[in-house]
Amino acid sequence: MMGERIQADYLIETAFDPHMAAEVMAGEQSSGTFVKVPGETPELKARSAATVDDLTVLETVDEPSLPGARRPDDAPIRRARVSLSWPLANLGPSLPNLMTTVAGNLFELGQFSGLRLLDMRLPDAFAERYAGPRFGIDGTRRLTGVTDGPVIGTIIKPSVGFDATQTASLVKELAEAGIDFIKDDELQADGPACPFEDRVRAVMAIINAHADRTGKRVMFAFNLTGEMDEMKHRHDLVRDSGGTCVMASLNSVGLTAFIELARMSELPVHAHRNGWGALSRHPQLGWSYVAWQKFWRLAGADHMHVNGLDNKFCEPNDSVIEAARTCLRPMFDDKPCLAMPVFSSGQSAIQPPETYRQLGSADLIYAAGGGIMGHPDGPAAGMESLRQSWRAAMAGVPLAEHAAKHPSLAKALEAYG
Amino acid sequence: MMGERIQADYLIETAFDPHMAAEVMAGEQSSGTFVKVPGETPELKARSAATVDDLTVLETVDEPSLPGARRPDDAPIRRARVSLSWPLANLGPSLPNLMTTVAGNLFELGQFSGLRLLDMRLPDAFAERYAGPRFGIDGTRRLTGVTDGPVIGTIIKPSVGFDATQTASLVKELAEAGIDFIKDDELQADGPACPFEDRVRAVMAIINAHADRTGKRVMFAFNLTGEMDEMKHRHDLVRDSGGTCVMASLNSVGLTAFIELARMSELPVHAHRNGWGALSRHPQLGWSYVAWQKFWRLAGADHMHVNGLDNKFCEPNDSVIEAARTCLRPMFDDKPCLAMPVFSSGQSAIQPPETYRQLGSADLIYAAGGGIMGHPDGPAAGMESLRQSWRAAMAGVPLAEHAAKHPSLAKALEAYG
Repeated sequence: MMGERIQADYLIETAFDPHMAAEVMAGEQSSGTFVKVPGETPELKARSAATVDDLTVLETVDEPSLPGARRPDDAPIRRARVSLSWPLANLGPSLPNLMTTVAGNLFELGQFSGLRLLDMRLPDAFAERYAGPRFGIDGTRRLTGVTDGPVIGTIIKPSVGFDATQTASLVKELAEAGIDFIKDDELQADGPACPFEDRVRAVMAIINAHADRTGKRVMFAFNLTGEMDEMKHRHDLVRDSGGTCVMASLNSVGLTAFIELARMSELPVHAHRNGWGALSRHPQLGWSYVAWQKFWRLAGADHMHVNGLDNKFCEPNDSVIEAARTCLRPMFDDKPCLAMPVFSSGQSAIQPPETYRQLGSADLIYAAGGGIMGHPDGPAAGMESLRQSWRAAMAGVPLAEHAAKHPSLAKALEAYG
Repeated sequence: MMGERIQADYLIETAFDPHMAAEVMAGEQSSGTFVKVPGETPELKARSAATVDDLTVLETVDEPSLPGARRPDDAPIRRARVSLSWPLANLGPSLPNLMTTVAGNLFELGQFSGLRLLDMRLPDAFAERYAGPRFGIDGTRRLTGVTDGPVIGTIIKPSVGFDATQTASLVKELAEAGIDFIKDDELQADGPACPFEDRVRAVMAIINAHADRTGKRVMFAFNLTGEMDEMKHRHDLVRDSGGTCVMASLNSVGLTAFIELARMSELPVHAHRNGWGALSRHPQLGWSYVAWQKFWRLAGADHMHVNGLDNKFCEPNDSVIEAARTCLRPMFDDKPCLAMPVFSSGQSAIQPPETYRQLGSADLIYAAGGGIMGHPDGPAAGMESLRQSWRAAMAGVPLAEHAAKHPSLAKALEAYG
């Protein structure tokens, strides 16, 4: 283990010599500080220093992307792509300490008017230490009974405001319409107006009865986001009530608690990324999804949110597709850790053909809120329109042609197009 | 509780009518979605909707600060300050779910080319549910024996690379020089080259022997960042070894695990903010420190990092001072939750007078790495120079005048000035 290294790639922007600036990053994140200290011997540096392994200078820009960076004598501001590496022995295979190492005290360094973590590669010791998704694509297909094509899902809407009984009656309507997957909105966890326990009992009574009658068990991702003991208790309640999925908000729960939750969970863990925009929206700052999702997949996220094409957010379509692709790309040779990408946000029957064409896979959860609940003929028609759209997409049949024979799809194209 | 509301303030930037854009935020983060859904009745909205309580339009800007926002017909891009509020009954007094509510799926909304959380105000139910700092200023002063003036501290440098024995011998040197506080670097937790247990045993042997001999117990913040069971085990080891402080990296550990750690901790919790830059560095995106630190203080952070004047990072001095002030400002009438601000980053004997003048308080930890270890006459002189500088600052004596009688200070002013 002692010889292995952790590698991370960054996009930087600096008015200093990019090689020198990269050396500052490497120093700050390993054995260096702003002045020479007595203990930093050549032997210690050889053993512990991060190194600059690769650097490609990119374009020059007129103005700094972020304020506060130092700029000597109106020097040109250049962007570069840089790869650093660290000895694994500095930290050991610990995900929380990996986060401090690759994404800690460096976004604010005075040499940089831009710094974004793009990707990272980890030694196998991480694969040995962490379980990764224990259900993933196969487990989700097995539990939902969806053998091919996407798992079609929806989100309880209104996001917040229904009590347990109202939630359950919406679940009944959706189950009867044949839905595969339903999730709580991330805003609904255990508010006094809709307590978690009441919701689980009311919803699972419907799902269990529907499964007994039809053989199909709708997967409901109950949002158990909360404190550690609450999450454990809520997980057990879902499991004991016949539920097949739990959901957590990654940025609200945080990495250490998520590792603990995923490790003890006997159900697939549906990972919601709300708050992600703060970490990623400026293209010269923060995190790429490619780097970020590796933490959560390795920790055990079975389903990862990736937004959707033509979403109501700011993310461009190529970024959405790259996010979904990265969830389906193996992390280690012997441990792929594939997570099922979850498409959502402004999704309706419009987007499936382009989604399928660009991703080249239907190993995904396709979730629509308004795209189901807001269908002119109601939720059942909304759900049906999504399935019809995906069927057309996978068969290579143009939507308009398919819609001619399928009125729910036709109405959806009219309503959302 | 049902009538109480959570309030949050944002800086927004939008090419839409700011009032309309604020209504979109409020809808997204409560009962709304992108199309009207059947369940969103007027009664439900009255019960559950977030409301726009206040809005002040600010300047117009030429270019959007963040890419991807929609802009109808070259409409002017305006900034505004907006306050939203939510019924507490939507979520209950839960810090993780509060994070999803006030800082979840809104940074990416298509209407905004800028969105930053500035502050928030919480109903007393949060103060009843969460402990807040259980040691804070008084507890830290009691445990360190520093009755007035700042707690003078340092960081083990090199950040990473020393083994347990080397760390302990540096601690011996610093303890003999009279230091009050030492912390692990955030990069040093439990790497194979310096295992946590070995470090605690080696360091505490020195600290205990020094305390037995002199009556002064140096506070050492051991960085226990890791998984849940590791952190509990490490806390117990520190406590049982006579240690008086533990440290965690907030962004690496996350909120739920930090709540659990602080709740079980019998020692002050030193909260490191590495990774903070990704959340805050762009002035139109993410989080202000004022809002962010409220989560961690309420969860139980006793010491909060605030950077330092003339630091090696990009943060301007007025932002540093505002961060320190906010840690010393009461959160609730009956539960102030004051945390001790920790000044660090490029600190030396140079900055104390201005720090004291601007903050108006010495209830703080003043930590220098290179500013102590890199002193021309070694760590003991570095430490002494800091104490001398603070003594001058608090007495209103100009540094140069004080340095005339104190050679360590004089040499520090020369080396770092």
